[in-house]
Amino acid sequence: MPNATGPIGVFDSGVGGLSVLRALSRALPHDDFLYIGDTARIPYGSKPMAMVRGFAEELADLLVAYGAKAIVVACNTASAAALPALAERIRVPVWGVIEPGVAAALAATRGGVVGVLGTLGTIRSAAYQSRLERAGVAVWARACPLFVPIVEEGVSDTEIAALVARHYLRDRPRDLDTLILACTHYPALVDTLAEALGPAVTLVDSAETTAAAVASEMASLGLATATRRAGHVRHLVTGDIAVYRHTGTALGWLEGDVAPLTLAAPRAGVVVGGPR
Amino acid sequence: MPNATGPIGVFDSGVGGLSVLRALSRALPHDDFLYIGDTARIPYGSKPMAMVRGFAEELADLLVAYGAKAIVVACNTASAAALPALAERIRVPVWGVIEPGVAAALAATRGGVVGVLGTLGTIRSAAYQSRLERAGVAVWARACPLFVPIVEEGVSDTEIAALVARHYLRDRPRDLDTLILACTHYPALVDTLAEALGPAVTLVDSAETTAAAVASEMASLGLATATRRAGHVRHLVTGDIAVYRHTGTALGWLEGDVAPLTLAAPRAGVVVGGPR
Repeated sequence: MPNATGPIGVFDSGVGGLSVLRALSRALPHDDFLYIGDTARIPYGSKPMAMVRGFAEELADLLVAYGAKAIVVACNTASAAALPALAERIRVPVWGVIEPGVAAALAATRGGVVGVLGTLGTIRSAAYQSRLERAGVAVWARACPLFVPIVEEGVSDTEIAALVARHYLRDRPRDLDTLILACTHYPALVDTLAEALGPAVTLVDSAETTAAAVASEMASLGLATATRRAGHVRHLVTGDIAVYRHTGTALGWLEGDVAPLTLAAPRAGVVVGGPR
Repeated sequence: MPNATGPIGVFDSGVGGLSVLRALSRALPHDDFLYIGDTARIPYGSKPMAMVRGFAEELADLLVAYGAKAIVVACNTASAAALPALAERIRVPVWGVIEPGVAAALAATRGGVVGVLGTLGTIRSAAYQSRLERAGVAVWARACPLFVPIVEEGVSDTEIAALVARHYLRDRPRDLDTLILACTHYPALVDTLAEALGPAVTLVDSAETTAAAVASEMASLGLATATRRAGHVRHLVTGDIAVYRHTGTALGWLEGDVAPLTLAAPRAGVVVGGPR
């Protein structure tokens, strides 16, 4: 039985998911949030999908153990790797960031091509592309590995970001009319991308669309909190707390308390395919 | 007792150390090499130092178990985190990339400032700065988080790299005369950096300087191989093999066979500082 008084559990490999958390806490201002930033194992995007699925299961189990009444996977790679399997594993509702972004893009497109920008892992998983193609939409996809460090480095509004945006967008189709920002870091690049694309392309921010979808479904599931006080946000971080706080603050996305979370360090175990 | 017939073990968090491996295999063409690319846990640069030290101990132990006659830590972050403690732990000689780079810079400087470019982790560890300052040299240091993805993205020779190089170098001191490339990815940026700096600044490539130091010390320790056949290079990769092979090949740094290495996946263990 879900517990409408517990926090909403949210996790990501790092600070990117804070864009989703911020949108969620604005859409659900009376709810508490418990966010795990798994920075010790960042980035998920270049790791094997089975490994990322293991991380997602571990973090979701932990959030449920901490009393979460629902889980939001605020990470495209983890959403692609772990959903819908995760929803079967745990006993509270689970949402990812992919379905809401796809739904918003299908609503926005005017018959042209829908584009997807994301990390290597998200684009290679084809999680967005397969859903869009199943809906009969023409798709263009591009992995943009430089965007995350550009955002974290605080140069999203500089000529560097503009040049890199033009680099990634240069082979886009002429009839692109909608572009999904399929990475939680990319909301910081909205202005730069809009400038590079011009007004004919609608940008879909999956942080905003996910928050809207979750808020609406929480209400219909009877999981909205009954209190009217301001919600509380707590962050648990597996890596360096100072770096997390610094980057999250620089992005303008950090609210609430930050505490360390230590997972068992990986040690040598089964060795497959050693030398000879 | 060291075994002069075993391979030289080399490890890094990913493909960056391949610049060191390539320089080593040119300096020691008759030796075999066993390289671990720990891409499953990339990047080391943003992780807590104690965690990186644990990774380094694990990988060095593994290389020794596989018969390595010597170990080269081809990673600045791991060298800063694990040396000299690693040298006391294992029973074969161990070299890092920091001491050779510092020695080369001290030999190159003409009384001006010595600069250090590296990842956040390397610069924050102050491993280079403290050694240079102990030698009485004025130091300027700059973390360059965009350089690694620029190199891995294959845009090292484009206007993007030039713009980012000017961004990182814009507050360098006027009397900078020597610049250490304190990250194993940066040899790919030598031309771009030389162009941005002009001829008055000497670039120190720690891959080259490390290979020269290791080759010379191997000879004096009696560890040089007696064979005259061409050495064999084998790579063990903890993360996605296809991505590793693709990136290493695109960089022009990949030679030899590639095989998977599975370490035990990290699971939830001791939890420190959970909520309330």
